[in-house]
Amino acid sequence: MVFWKSLFNVAESNSAAPQANSAMVSIQTVGFDPPGKNPIVLSLNRDLDLYELEELCDAVGWARRPLRKLRKALQNSFLVVSMWEIRGKTRRMIGFARATSDGAFNATIWDVVVHPDFQGKKMGKALMKYLIKKIRSEDISNITLFADSHVVGFYDGMGFVEDPEGIKGMFWYPD
Amino acid sequence: MVFWKSLFNVAESNSAAPQANSAMVSIQTVGFDPPGKNPIVLSLNRDLDLYELEELCDAVGWARRPLRKLRKALQNSFLVVSMWEIRGKTRRMIGFARATSDGAFNATIWDVVVHPDFQGKKMGKALMKYLIKKIRSEDISNITLFADSHVVGFYDGMGFVEDPEGIKGMFWYPD
Repeated sequence: MVFWKSLFNVAESNSAAPQANSAMVSIQTVGFDPPGKNPIVLSLNRDLDLYELEELCDAVGWARRPLRKLRKALQNSFLVVSMWEIRGKTRRMIGFARATSDGAFNATIWDVVVHPDFQGKKMGKALMKYLIKKIRSEDISNITLFADSHVVGFYDGMGFVEDPEGIKGMFWYPD
Repeated sequence: MVFWKSLFNVAESNSAAPQANSAMVSIQTVGFDPPGKNPIVLSLNRDLDLYELEELCDAVGWARRPLRKLRKALQNSFLVVSMWEIRGKTRRMIGFARATSDGAFNATIWDVVVHPDFQGKKMGKALMKYLIKKIRSEDISNITLFADSHVVGFYDGMGFVEDPEGIKGMFWYPD
């Protein structure tokens, strides 16, 4: 509880105007398993080094995407959250997630990734909790995502429900 | 074929810059069942009369939403499409749909509605085809939606696939 409380107290002081907010939000390491010695921080800055983001996505085996389109996607996202390990004077991107939204009713979360070195250490949960908190602070009630089958359990543990009331996620395919 | 061809020829001449495009796009009545005598047009204008939109949503029994939030949602949507029946000098909103997007990879369709008087006459299909065409013209490949159980069949007939490769639509619920 100490961990979440400290995270969200910081988060709340940075709410509103997500499109312009570039604050780095420090996450207390309380409650983290190892590696845990280096500070972990979250950022809302969307002007990221795309090569660094690509490297993170490479590490989990995602297909590469054109950087021009990736830049556009970040700019047009409602929220962009990145997670960093601070090592002295350098920092390393270890997590990422973003959301599209109409700013009023619906937000949809995309591209949730945590570096394999940091998986199983509650980093993904911290990233998602922060993103959800930020979306909720904008008075958006409907938070959705499309989960690959092997991560349904992870999101289930975060309060996400699959196919509630029979609602089905659908993807369009060209003829 | 004549109907769709004429629809998309017109649509294509109005492509690009969806955020600013307020064109009225005429749909040929060719291929429509009755009522079919009055012209049906589509619009990309997002500056809609919200009371008229609310009336349309009332007609299908949707819960009312605060107009302030509805206005914000329309402004922040990537595309807003409305469908109108032209009766002499007046027009009546008979359909609506919108999409959120990052402008690059993903678009999600929300709030698809056709007035009960015009259901079963391929109006919903025309509305969706047009919205999909517009999204595709922006080079966005992943088009998604969340379908209530009773309309899964409708979207299935439009080229949407539920849970492809085991991907699940999920909704977040507060603790």
